[in-house]
Amino acid sequence: WIKQHITDLHFADIAEIMDELSMEQSRYLYYQLDEELQADVLMELEEEVRDRFLASLSSKEMAEQLENLDSDDAADILGELPDEKIQEVISQMEDDDAADDIVDLLNYDEDTAGGLMQKEFIQARLDWPVNRALVELRRQAEDVEQVYTIYVIDDLNKLVGVLSLKRLLFASPKTPIRDLYEGKNLIFVTTSDSSEKVAKVMEKYDLVSVPVVDLQGKLVGRITIDDVVDVIKEEADKDFQLASGISEKVESNSSVFRISRARLPWLLIGMLGGILSAQVISRFETNITHLPALAFFIPLITAMGGNVGVQSSAIVVQSLARGNDPFDSIFSKVGKEAIVGLVNGLLCSSLIFGISYFFNDYLLALVVSISLLTVTIFAAIFGTMIPLILNRYKIDPALATGPFVTTTNDVLGLFIYFTIGLLLLN
Amino acid sequence: WIKQHITDLHFADIAEIMDELSMEQSRYLYYQLDEELQADVLMELEEEVRDRFLASLSSKEMAEQLENLDSDDAADILGELPDEKIQEVISQMEDDDAADDIVDLLNYDEDTAGGLMQKEFIQARLDWPVNRALVELRRQAEDVEQVYTIYVIDDLNKLVGVLSLKRLLFASPKTPIRDLYEGKNLIFVTTSDSSEKVAKVMEKYDLVSVPVVDLQGKLVGRITIDDVVDVIKEEADKDFQLASGISEKVESNSSVFRISRARLPWLLIGMLGGILSAQVISRFETNITHLPALAFFIPLITAMGGNVGVQSSAIVVQSLARGNDPFDSIFSKVGKEAIVGLVNGLLCSSLIFGISYFFNDYLLALVVSISLLTVTIFAAIFGTMIPLILNRYKIDPALATGPFVTTTNDVLGLFIYFTIGLLLLN
Ligand SMILES: [Mg+2]
Ligand SMILES: [Mg+2]
Ligand SMILES: [Mg+2]
Ligand SMILES: [Mg+2]
Ligand SMILES: [Mg+2]
Ligand SMILES: [Mg+2]
Ligand SMILES: [Mg+2]
Ligand SMILES: [Mg+2]
Ligand SMILES: [Mg+2]
Ligand SMILES: [Mg+2]
Ligand SMILES: [Mg+2]
Ligand SMILES: [Mg+2]
Ligand SMILES: [Mg+2]
Repeated sequence: WIKQHITDLHFADIAEIMDELSMEQSRYLYYQLDEELQADVLMELEEEVRDRFLASLSSKEMAEQLENLDSDDAADILGELPDEKIQEVISQMEDDDAADDIVDLLNYDEDTAGGLMQKEFIQARLDWPVNRALVELRRQAEDVEQVYTIYVIDDLNKLVGVLSLKRLLFASPKTPIRDLYEGKNLIFVTTSDSSEKVAKVMEKYDLVSVPVVDLQGKLVGRITIDDVVDVIKEEADKDFQLASGISEKVESNSSVFRISRARLPWLLIGMLGGILSAQVISRFETNITHLPALAFFIPLITAMGGNVGVQSSAIVVQSLARGNDPFDSIFSKVGKEAIVGLVNGLLCSSLIFGISYFFNDYLLALVVSISLLTVTIFAAIFGTMIPLILNRYKIDPALATGPFVTTTNDVLGLFIYFTIGLLLLN
Repeated sequence: WIKQHITDLHFADIAEIMDELSMEQSRYLYYQLDEELQADVLMELEEEVRDRFLASLSSKEMAEQLENLDSDDAADILGELPDEKIQEVISQMEDDDAADDIVDLLNYDEDTAGGLMQKEFIQARLDWPVNRALVELRRQAEDVEQVYTIYVIDDLNKLVGVLSLKRLLFASPKTPIRDLYEGKNLIFVTTSDSSEKVAKVMEKYDLVSVPVVDLQGKLVGRITIDDVVDVIKEEADKDFQLASGISEKVESNSSVFRISRARLPWLLIGMLGGILSAQVISRFETNITHLPALAFFIPLITAMGGNVGVQSSAIVVQSLARGNDPFDSIFSKVGKEAIVGLVNGLLCSSLIFGISYFFNDYLLALVVSISLLTVTIFAAIFGTMIPLILNRYKIDPALATGPFVTTTNDVLGLFIYFTIGLLLLN
C-alpha cells in the first residue's frame, strides 16, 4: 500500500516525507523505491538526514546509488567522505566512465565553476550534418536528463558555440552544424571561476545552463540553473547571517552547542565594545556626578549611531554584492552617505532638542542634539567605509553590517557625546 | 564604427554600457541597433535609466518596442505608465494577438504567478500525432524564444501533462502525444499564487519553467526561471534591507532624498527607544549620583541585548522565509533560543564579572554580570518571539531583525540592569 502511494509522488515530496520520519521508517520506505528514484530522493533530503542515511549504507550500496545520480551530485556526496571511503566506493562502481567523471569532479573546489559543473551535457561537432548529430545526440541524451542547449565544439574539443534543440529540430537533415550554430556572443565560464561569478553570469544573461571550459578552452562540463539558484540562496542566507552577527552557517535545527558557538565571536566583540565604552564613560565620571542626566541619553546616542551605521553599510554591502562599482567610487559613496546622515541627523536632532528641552535644561538639550547630529554623520561615514575597506582586503563585507559597525559606532559615539558635553557644560 | 562594434555585443552588455552613458549618447547608440536588439536592450537597462528612456519615446515608438518584447516584459513596462498612456500605446500596436496578451497580463498583481507569467509557450494537444505536433510547434515556436518543455492540454484546454522536446525529437512520427507525454507528478501554479510560492515550487522541483493555470485548470501561461531568479534576489535584498532598518527599496544610486526617507522610519523608532531608555534611567537618577560607575556599563548592556536579540531573530526569520515550521513549534524555538542565550550569557557574564571585578568593586561586578545574564536570556526570547508574532499577523518578519528588536531590547535591558542594581546595591 505504501509502495503504491508513495512511489507515485514526486521525489522531492518523498524526500520531504522522509525528512520527518525516523531513521528506521525512512530506511524501510527507501528500499521500497526503485533505484532511479532512490538516487533522486537521496539528493533532495536535508543534509543532516542524508549524511546519517549514507553512513548506514555499505560501499557497494553507495556505489550503486552514485551511478544513478548526476555526476555533480555524486561528486558532492563523495567529497564529504574520508579519503579511504572514497577510494572504496569508487572501486565498487561498475560504470567506469561514470567513475572517471566523478573522480575528475572531485578535483575542483566546491566554490568554483568546476565544483558546480556536471559531466552530463550534449555536444556536437562543427562538421557533423544534422542527421549525424541527431543520432549522436540520441545516444548522448540517454545520460542527460535535461537538454537545454547543445554545445558545439571544433576538432580540438574547443567550445566554439551553442545550438538550441529547437533549431536542430527544425533544420533539414543534411545541413552541417557549422551552418546552424550560434558562435557570436558565446557565454561560458572557466573551471576556476568562483561560484559567485557563475551566478552573476547566468543571472545577467538569463541562462538555464552555461558551458564550462578548462584553461585551454576545451569543453569540460556544464552548470545548470537549479544548482545556481541554490548558490544564490545560500549566499543570501550567509550574508543575512553575517550581518546579524552569526559567523558560521547554522540552521534553526542545528544543535544548541553549534548555535551558541556560531554566535559567540560577535558577542565577544560586543563585550569588548561594551568595555571600551565603559572606559570612555569612566573618564567623564565627575561630569556624571554633577549632572546625572548626562547618563540618561547614553542609549539614545549609541542606538542612533548603531542604526545609522547599519543602514549605511547595508547599502554598500548590497551594491558590492551586485558587483557594482567597487573602491574607485569610494569618495562619492562616503560623501553621499555623509549627506544622508546630515539630513536625517538634522531632523532627528531638532526633534530631540525640542523633546529634551521640554524635559530638562537648555544646555543639556543642546549637548544631546549637537552630539546626535555629529554622531549621525560620523556613523554614516564609518558605516560606508568599513565594508569598503573589508572588501578591499578580501573580507566578506557583509560582516560589516553587523555588530562590527554597531560596536565601533558605540565607542565613537560616546566619545563624541561626552566630549561635546564637556565643552559645552564647562 | 560604433554600430559595427556595439551590435556584435550581447544585449545585456550593450545595456550595461548604456547605463553609463548620457541620455543623448545612449539614444544615439540605441537607434543604431536593429529593432529586435533594441527591445532586448531595453529590458536589461537599469530601471531608472529605462524609465527616462521610455518617457522620451512616442506612443507609436513604444508600441513597436513592446511588440518585440516577451509579453511578460511588455506588460511590466506598460503597467508602470498612467492609464491613458497605456490605452494610447495599446491602440498603436499592430499585432492584435500580442496586444490581447499584454492586456490580459495587465490584470494580474505583479507579486503573483499571473504577474510573472508570459503568454509565449508551446502547447500540444493530447490527440495530435508527433508529426502534426511538430508542424504546429514549428509555427508556435516562432514566437517563443526559449523552448524548455511542451505543455500538453486536453480538448478543453486543461493542462494534463508535459512533454520534453527531447522526447518529441526522438519519437516516431505517428505516435500520438497521448503515448509520449508525462502526466504523473504534474507541477503547475495558479495565477493567484504568490511569487514567493512560485519561487519555492521552482526551487524545490528544480524547474526551468512552470506552467500557469487559471482557476478552472486551463493553461494560460508559463513562468521562466530567469524571472524567478530575479524574484529570489529581490526578496533577499528586501529582507536584508528590512533587517538593516531600511523600509523601502533603494539602490545605492537613488537620490539623497529617497535614501533619507527610506531610513527615517527606523531612526524615529530608534529615537523613541532612546527617549524611553532615558525615562527608564532617569528613574534611577539618585543611584547614579551615588555610584556613577553604574552608568559606565549602560552601553554594554544595550549592545549585548541588541546583538543577542538580532542573532536570535535572524535564525527565525530565515527559517520562516524557507517555509519551515511556522507557529506550531513556537515553544520549542523559544525554549531553544533561551538555552542558547543562557549558554552564551553564562560565558559572557563570567568574563565580565572577572573584568569588572578587577576594575571596580565586587558588588558592581555582581550587578553587571547578573544583569548581563538576565538580559541575554530575555533578549534571546524576545528576538525569537517578535518575528514569530509579526509573521502571524502577516507582517514581514524580516522587520524584526532590525532596529525593532534592538530598540525593544535596549529599553528592556536597561530596566533589568537598573532594577538588579537597585536590589543588590541597597
Ligand atoms: Mg537521475
Ligand atoms: Mg560539486
Ligand atoms: Mg536576469
Ligand atoms: Mg545538478
Ligand atoms: Mg540539485
Ligand atoms: Mg557574500
Ligand atoms: Mg525578443
Ligand atoms: Mg509581470
Ligand atoms: Mg533545488
Ligand atoms: Mg520573462
Ligand atoms: Mg528577464
Ligand atoms: Mg520577505
Ligand atoms: Mg545598540
